[in-house]
Amino acid sequence: MKKGHQVTMKEIAKKLGVSVSTISRALKDSPELHPDTKKRIVEMAKEMNYQPNLLAQSLRISRTNTLGVIVPEITSHFFASCISGIQDHANKRGYNVMICQSNETLELEKANIRTLVASQVDGLLISLSRETNQFDHLLDIYNREIPFLLFDRVNEDIPVSRVTFNDEGGAYQVTKHLLETGCKRVMYVSGPEDLYISKKRKEGYLHALNEFGITPDPALVKISDLTIEGNIKIGKEIAEMKSRPDGVFCMIDPVAIDILTFWKSIGIKVPDDMALAGFTNNPTSAVVEPPLTTVAQPGYEMGKLSVTHLLDQLDGIASDDPISIVLETTLVPRQSTKALK
Amino acid sequence: MKKGHQVTMKEIAKKLGVSVSTISRALKDSPELHPDTKKRIVEMAKEMNYQPNLLAQSLRISRTNTLGVIVPEITSHFFASCISGIQDHANKRGYNVMICQSNETLELEKANIRTLVASQVDGLLISLSRETNQFDHLLDIYNREIPFLLFDRVNEDIPVSRVTFNDEGGAYQVTKHLLETGCKRVMYVSGPEDLYISKKRKEGYLHALNEFGITPDPALVKISDLTIEGNIKIGKEIAEMKSRPDGVFCMIDPVAIDILTFWKSIGIKVPDDMALAGFTNNPTSAVVEPPLTTVAQPGYEMGKLSVTHLLDQLDGIASDDPISIVLETTLVPRQSTKALK
Repeated sequence: MKKGHQVTMKEIAKKLGVSVSTISRALKDSPELHPDTKKRIVEMAKEMNYQPNLLAQSLRISRTNTLGVIVPEITSHFFASCISGIQDHANKRGYNVMICQSNETLELEKANIRTLVASQVDGLLISLSRETNQFDHLLDIYNREIPFLLFDRVNEDIPVSRVTFNDEGGAYQVTKHLLETGCKRVMYVSGPEDLYISKKRKEGYLHALNEFGITPDPALVKISDLTIEGNIKIGKEIAEMKSRPDGVFCMIDPVAIDILTFWKSIGIKVPDDMALAGFTNNPTSAVVEPPLTTVAQPGYEMGKLSVTHLLDQLDGIASDDPISIVLETTLVPRQSTKALK
Repeated sequence: MKKGHQVTMKEIAKKLGVSVSTISRALKDSPELHPDTKKRIVEMAKEMNYQPNLLAQSLRISRTNTLGVIVPEITSHFFASCISGIQDHANKRGYNVMICQSNETLELEKANIRTLVASQVDGLLISLSRETNQFDHLLDIYNREIPFLLFDRVNEDIPVSRVTFNDEGGAYQVTKHLLETGCKRVMYVSGPEDLYISKKRKEGYLHALNEFGITPDPALVKISDLTIEGNIKIGKEIAEMKSRPDGVFCMIDPVAIDILTFWKSIGIKVPDDMALAGFTNNPTSAVVEPPLTTVAQPGYEMGKLSVTHLLDQLDGIASDDPISIVLETTLVPRQSTKALK
């Protein structure tokens, strides 16, 4: 081992073949672990001459009263709402907030973390980019004991608290609404399949079908790349199907709005020809014609809960042990689906 | 004078009864000033033992490659677009960007400046809050020689570069469009009168009326507080007028959209009963029914030009002397106004 090298929890974890989170819990004497496991880890930490990062701890004492936020994009109304919730509740507790956007790239996400850490923020609130499929940059700040949590776009392998929506539950609600209002053939228009929300919302869709005794039809699941062109292409494909669906649930509002706009241009009537629903409750969804049935995700509330939990951890009010906070969504029925009888 | 006190340009300006900008130009030997004025200022600076802020200059050499941005609110699609333009073009030149929002308050604007300056950003791009009516916090960073510029919400007394839209020209375009498509009685729905854009857009409105030989009618100017409730109240007042306008130009799209939604609910037809137009070209303006005639303000372009100019100043490509960049707007005619014959 190099002279002056400081052993990290990651190295202990590798040596013992357990997760960094397990090491962290053992060194904090968490009651969740078996005493034998704890003993084995504490002994290895001693043997490897592990020392908690004192610099990080001292930085944590000399606070800057500033938090850093990283979001994929701030032009999204949803993330902008999260930021408002974070900012209002950080300000209330005497913290100021600096925001960076990753533009959905891993490279910029890493650069943002470097910039905010160099600015000595007291903690970070991070929503991962679409591209983020490796996590060394997050494990790195975890090992340096820089407090952070993940919200909305999370990864379950990083041992920090995370705040998410019940995506599966929201998709179940809206699919059930389509079925209850008379649809027999409900389609799901998904985003790219490797996205967390694509999967979760499909689970909710399938759950509702199952509850109504409907066998899923692979022809009734389509995948958009989420660009305007991609969404219109899907709208066209649906219009040209021999056996059209009678209800379409789109993973996010912009997909539904692009399809609606295209359908109107070729004379398809919503909801009479086909019912249509989205997810997110963008401001636009309320003003399109007909107004769009959707699922509300309270972004402001997510921001508020995220920052409150992180500040509680910083202030020693909440434990440092990671928790998962799941927020419920709400069905917003409007005129793009038929009314309940 | 206190021992160790460092004389600022502001103090010299006060002593001589001239602006800080004049002092700055004189000390940079700007050709814009009369030689006598320069001589008087340079002598006073010597007498007062003025020294350029060496700390600021040294910080300027040891760059962090980070820029700070302060906007009133990021939930606004316009400011989010500005930020995208700033970020893309900062990244291209190897800079990262940290964003703060003032939530339209002077207090938070000051706190944001403190936070970003403490983070040693190389420069700042600032759009002022609605509340900002005194400017000591800006003169302070000016005196500390921290490079910054103002965009969109600017003040003309701060001696730094500013980037704005031709608001007067845009309002003239849209009012002229209403008049050319047959309107005889065009109303202007303004925001609070002390806002810069309220004034500038009213000037454009009056300019167009004047060109068409129409005497302005005070009954045809209304002021909204820009809340949803306030906008609906104006929509109701217009509907109840004995002698209604036949065309309404709203200072910003959200006002027009709220009025449109209210009118639809009481059976007023746009554009047949009254034509309606906004300003900004929000994404929502394209999808309401009927789609809204508006004026496009390229926010991304504003962000791009702002950051490019600031980085050019930092890199010595552009002069430090303040300039004013004015961006043109574009009329976007849609179905909420009648077609040209």
